Amino acid sequence: MSTSRLLSPLHNYGKFQSTASLRSQKSAVCVGSRSVLIKQNIRRMATHKPTLTIENLNPCIKVMEYAVRGPLVTRAGEIEKELEKGASKPFKEVIKANIGDCHAMGQVPITFIRQVLALVAYPKLLDDPQFPEDAKERARTILKGCRGSSLGSYTDSPGIEVIRRHVAQYIENRDGIPSDWQNIVISGGASDAIKNVLKLFICRTNGKKPGVMIPIPQYPLYSATLSEFDIDQVGYYLDESKNWGLSLQELERSINEAKKQCTPRAIVVINPGNPTGQVLTKENIEEIVKFAQKEKLFILADEVYQHNIYDPNSKFHSFKKVMYEMGEPYRSMELASFMSCSKGYMGECGLRGGYAEVVNMDPEVKAQYFKAISAMLCSTTFGQSTLDVIVNPPKPGEPSYEQFEKDKASVLESLKLRAKMVADTFNSMEGFSCNPVQGAMYAFPQFKLPPKAIEAAKKKGQAPDAFYAFDLLESTGICIVPGSGFGQQPGTHHFRTTILPQPEKLKAMLDKFAEFHTQFLKKYS
Amino acid sequence: MSTSRLLSPLHNYGKFQSTASLRSQKSAVCVGSRSVLIKQNIRRMATHKPTLTIENLNPCIKVMEYAVRGPLVTRAGEIEKELEKGASKPFKEVIKANIGDCHAMGQVPITFIRQVLALVAYPKLLDDPQFPEDAKERARTILKGCRGSSLGSYTDSPGIEVIRRHVAQYIENRDGIPSDWQNIVISGGASDAIKNVLKLFICRTNGKKPGVMIPIPQYPLYSATLSEFDIDQVGYYLDESKNWGLSLQELERSINEAKKQCTPRAIVVINPGNPTGQVLTKENIEEIVKFAQKEKLFILADEVYQHNIYDPNSKFHSFKKVMYEMGEPYRSMELASFMSCSKGYMGECGLRGGYAEVVNMDPEVKAQYFKAISAMLCSTTFGQSTLDVIVNPPKPGEPSYEQFEKDKASVLESLKLRAKMVADTFNSMEGFSCNPVQGAMYAFPQFKLPPKAIEAAKKKGQAPDAFYAFDLLESTGICIVPGSGFGQQPGTHHFRTTILPQPEKLKAMLDKFAEFHTQFLKKYS
Repeated sequence: MSTSRLLSPLHNYGKFQSTASLRSQKSAVCVGSRSVLIKQNIRRMATHKPTLTIENLNPCIKVMEYAVRGPLVTRAGEIEKELEKGASKPFKEVIKANIGDCHAMGQVPITFIRQVLALVAYPKLLDDPQFPEDAKERARTILKGCRGSSLGSYTDSPGIEVIRRHVAQYIENRDGIPSDWQNIVISGGASDAIKNVLKLFICRTNGKKPGVMIPIPQYPLYSATLSEFDIDQVGYYLDESKNWGLSLQELERSINEAKKQCTPRAIVVINPGNPTGQVLTKENIEEIVKFAQKEKLFILADEVYQHNIYDPNSKFHSFKKVMYEMGEPYRSMELASFMSCSKGYMGECGLRGGYAEVVNMDPEVKAQYFKAISAMLCSTTFGQSTLDVIVNPPKPGEPSYEQFEKDKASVLESLKLRAKMVADTFNSMEGFSCNPVQGAMYAFPQFKLPPKAIEAAKKKGQAPDAFYAFDLLESTGICIVPGSGFGQQPGTHHFRTTILPQPEKLKAMLDKFAEFHTQFLKKYS
Repeated sequence: MSTSRLLSPLHNYGKFQSTASLRSQKSAVCVGSRSVLIKQNIRRMATHKPTLTIENLNPCIKVMEYAVRGPLVTRAGEIEKELEKGASKPFKEVIKANIGDCHAMGQVPITFIRQVLALVAYPKLLDDPQFPEDAKERARTILKGCRGSSLGSYTDSPGIEVIRRHVAQYIENRDGIPSDWQNIVISGGASDAIKNVLKLFICRTNGKKPGVMIPIPQYPLYSATLSEFDIDQVGYYLDESKNWGLSLQELERSINEAKKQCTPRAIVVINPGNPTGQVLTKENIEEIVKFAQKEKLFILADEVYQHNIYDPNSKFHSFKKVMYEMGEPYRSMELASFMSCSKGYMGECGLRGGYAEVVNMDPEVKAQYFKAISAMLCSTTFGQSTLDVIVNPPKPGEPSYEQFEKDKASVLESLKLRAKMVADTFNSMEGFSCNPVQGAMYAFPQFKLPPKAIEAAKKKGQAPDAFYAFDLLESTGICIVPGSGFGQQPGTHHFRTTILPQPEKLKAMLDKFAEFHTQFLKKYS
């Protein structure tokens, strides 16, 4: 039996302590005698027994997975710490291409947004001439919407009324059709909003569990949330050969199979796609809407990348607009559409702002939905303020208009170049194929692995794509997410990478990637 | 059949639309002929049928209640709108004494907190000489802890490392015992943290549902969350005659009764108390800890009011410190303690910052707990930054120290006066008895109602205390929360009022209250 095994109860004890004090405690005890330590441990073992254990822990949490922050990312964090401590590696830094975290990758915040936030944080600055008048006007409007004119007050649970009105106006301008501000629920990022809507479907009907259709590959928030809520995940495969479009046949196959086990209640569509980067055509959306209508599905449209369209032949069509223009009965279908401050050109992930627009919800259900969110009081006022700026940006003639438009265009233009750079590079690599990144912030290339690599992965008990991703991380410092974290057709291998490293760094990353891949193929040929 | 009944499908249709456009649509159709409208409605009735209905909605959400934002508060909001529109009422404004919302009631934000927030929002201000050096130092430290030095980046799911370290230091300083920063989980307010811990207990054992002990009266977040999670609520009554203390006999009674139906897994204690305002003695905490140990309960200590102690004979004792000082086996018990930026002297409710310190959690469980929060990415960086200032305020010798201490003392001193003013007033009212408000921000007086009033309430289908509260609201504009929203001994009547209106307004409110009560007694005598 090893010392560490004997010491483990002390380690438990140490959970109560900071590392420093644990160290001193340990040496203090050890100086005396080893047997004292052991005796103390035995005594502790007899008394301390956790009441919450892996055996009686919420089973839904145990099965939950969230790949974007999974073991690979944990390892990337460890490597960063090793590098800080001067460890010798074949690279100087970890490049986190695993998460759509724009500012972390060097994107600069939009000045106007931050000016408004500084003003609402510290209203004394409203008298400061260094701030432009339009930023002050936005800040004054937000403060007026807050109780006691302070961001420190709770807001109504669905958000500050004037901001909800601005959101509705933004949607009206975007779609050219009406939006009711009372259908807007502001949230701490889109994730929060999505969970609050998915939660409504937790209900057995006819002795069957509820099911929610989600795309495969999907953004793992969906699989994680469905696991947590014990809702059946009904996956439908996106068609990689048709640029990750949705085929009606596949939707039919998926739902018919699912119906044997659960009651499908809703369908999630992510457009532009995450992790897949496609932008759905209007015709494709119409097909999905018809399918949802026929199958009586509530539509959850994840439209957080609505500003991120790079392909000149693609256009963002909101589900709401398409449904509306299809006329009845589609126009009256229930829909929740989600938007976020974390993506687009602003990339303000850490501020946690987003919204759901919920249309045609049964009024009784809507009352219950609003009640359910009220127990969490309200979403953060800084997130709400950020959202306000995004839906109500400087207008022509206002002092910040030109700079704002320039900032915005520059981010989107650069992302467009990077989208192309990423897809082109992968398509030039042996055994790779990558659909064009029409939108969003990710590429999801498919790649072939030599049988020997698959063998080696098996030996390590890893999925082949995870094996590849770990090797890539350890060899180059590049952190991506294996396709198995998002779901993929059995037997295929993918990964998701963001297109977010700044152009020069992205170029270097892609060069290193290509070099790694060549070496990898050589090693396992 | 009335016209409105016939028109209702159009109303459904209108859900898709803003009021203005609905109006134009309506008149456009109506201009043609009424029968066209009816025909269209019939067609719509035939096609539109919501898929998510009150029948197949999550049943846990249906049973959930959250009194702090319940029907009384909704009515208060309506009255506010009526007043805005010039409605004639016997009062000029609604006084929202229903919710611990400090800034909404006129409390001024602490300057230093807001300076730091302005600096992290807009780092260009770091060069501005109007900001003090210590605020800049805090801001620089926070920004350095953010990826890409921007608050717009995602943080680690449990929060920014340097802020977690500051929290641990704050706890060490408070308790004089060690705290490990890796046990700190920063959250979007305490509610978020509490839900994330309660979630872990969702697990049937030996065919029985889990149960969680909560005080009665309690803060309705607990009952709402337990309803949502389908965990049995095991209420134990606080002893009003002993200043809302916890009696061991009552804990025993409560758990023994509960064990017939569920498996009690955890106990929630709120100290200082909400809605009851008591501060637990060290001896009482020791009793609770012993009870929890004997019954193998995980302790959830809601300590968000730890700065709000007004009674000179009371002192805040953290559960952690008490447990630690009791030695083994208590020292090794599992505990989650919660803290918030929304209360104390800062009252920054809207910013959504808080933390949980989780000690002695089984390492495997802790890993699952951290995984579960990772799917929500991270809590808001502004909330985290606020928390940082609260746990790391200006120190003696720093430029903002004196002003900060003055601001803080002034808020707490004023709350202390108001606590006394409220309890004294209620104790002077006929049929009222109110325990002293030793801490927190609320009074929870008991009052007797004349039989005729109870009769009248019954006729209206309302709980007597709700009946009283509605009458108070309509007559005076004062909004309180009936005791039934928090739970109370059967046959007793209470309400919760905050002590937050500013002194002059509070005085006027209490005068009006007393007058109302006299009239009420006269009316129902």
